[in-house]
Amino acid sequence: MSAHPFDTAIALEPQGEGAWQGHTSPAYANMIGPFGGITAAQALNAVLQHPRRLGEPVAYTANFCAPVADGPFLALARPARTNRSTQHWIAELRQGDQTVLTATAVTAVRRETWGATEVPMPRVPGPQDLPPPMRRGRVEWINRYDMRFVEGGYPAAWDGSHAEDSRTQLWMRDEPPRPLDFASLAALSDVFFPRIWRRRATPTPIGTVSMTVYFHAGAAQLRRAGSGHLLGQAHAHGFRDGYFDQTAQLWNEPGELLATTHQVVYYKE
Amino acid sequence: MSAHPFDTAIALEPQGEGAWQGHTSPAYANMIGPFGGITAAQALNAVLQHPRRLGEPVAYTANFCAPVADGPFLALARPARTNRSTQHWIAELRQGDQTVLTATAVTAVRRETWGATEVPMPRVPGPQDLPPPMRRGRVEWINRYDMRFVEGGYPAAWDGSHAEDSRTQLWMRDEPPRPLDFASLAALSDVFFPRIWRRRATPTPIGTVSMTVYFHAGAAQLRRAGSGHLLGQAHAHGFRDGYFDQTAQLWNEPGELLATTHQVVYYKE
Repeated sequence: MSAHPFDTAIALEPQGEGAWQGHTSPAYANMIGPFGGITAAQALNAVLQHPRRLGEPVAYTANFCAPVADGPFLALARPARTNRSTQHWIAELRQGDQTVLTATAVTAVRRETWGATEVPMPRVPGPQDLPPPMRRGRVEWINRYDMRFVEGGYPAAWDGSHAEDSRTQLWMRDEPPRPLDFASLAALSDVFFPRIWRRRATPTPIGTVSMTVYFHAGAAQLRRAGSGHLLGQAHAHGFRDGYFDQTAQLWNEPGELLATTHQVVYYKE
Repeated sequence: MSAHPFDTAIALEPQGEGAWQGHTSPAYANMIGPFGGITAAQALNAVLQHPRRLGEPVAYTANFCAPVADGPFLALARPARTNRSTQHWIAELRQGDQTVLTATAVTAVRRETWGATEVPMPRVPGPQDLPPPMRRGRVEWINRYDMRFVEGGYPAAWDGSHAEDSRTQLWMRDEPPRPLDFASLAALSDVFFPRIWRRRATPTPIGTVSMTVYFHAGAAQLRRAGSGHLLGQAHAHGFRDGYFDQTAQLWNEPGELLATTHQVVYYKE
């Protein structure tokens, strides 16, 4: 059986303490360079692979410094601080002598406590009640995800029509299906198409500059997500002078909140 | 005229390229160590003071690795990547040989574009219609802010009563008033008291582990904020197994969105 394309894409070959070689994956190619979610997952994987890692990811921030060129990259991760139950990481991806991504992560050993969710999963039709994707995406990475839009799909036409808000709801999972883990959850956090396209139906050049994922899920919630769909909901707060933000939530099919994620995106107008 | 306590607190003395010495400020003391917002502002100030800085902050993430001890610290900031109009930063605060904070920042030269805000400022009474703080805070940093709660103030009693949601709205500014800048906006992003106290009215030990600020404001919006109040609105999405998140928005009095900010917070139960 051949490896899942996601596993192939995030595979890292150890190069000594805290360093790995990775390689961009044609399966996750975007218009220019790779899908940002896969790049973020590659850097997170360096933290996950580190022999000194303590616990599971709680917070992860990736900053996209420059387009990643097709080919190899060096992934670096070092624990900047290790406490009794938390650990702080600094990571980078480099190509040649250039930094293409910077990242920080917090990992922690989690203990059961009182809990609550303030954003119940919206009541929407299930993934089985919605049509699967019908046509191949114009960029390759789109074909690595099964996306079923509930609300706020791609603009039907680039006709410059203005939407009043930027909300999108969709069911999404890896294609082919793959059991959810922290790396794939990080990548799924970046699946939402740019909020400015949703608002303006205009083919505006964009690029995510910084993305943060808060992992509400531990091992139990990941297990209950399995290889099923996640419901994702995203919206923007503001667009101004070349940058907009996006805030999103991801739930597993049983309705548990798995991640909240935020990003700021450059746009050219 | 003496300096504003905020300026004294974030002051940094150059120690050669990319390094500064700072000092914790008793004026911003919290229960244990300093108010996290001032620590975040100190590290951001290292980026702001750097002679090679390009543009203004767009995104900033600070990770709180350990309690900051009263006394001096070393602030380090280096540009990991400089592009034509954006720049990526890695920063750290150290005490002795220990890292107490890691941070990344994106700065950028912003250009005027189409813009929109999807979260209009809530219609609430103005700061002049609400009573100013009446009593001194139990920790010193509280006295450095004029906070006027619109909704969701501190629990009236630690009686364990459960609130259904964690929303808080308040007007806030530096006390005494001080013209808003990027450093003080970063600190104000951390002013909200812990969402778990709002939900449970139980004195739960907490600590922010990671905080992100997206600066929607440029120089014009900061100028229009002046030394007036900002309206802040915060809520949590989820609380689970020792960590909860918080998402907040900050507007100036004219109603312009200045910042969206997110954090993940440890809690012990």
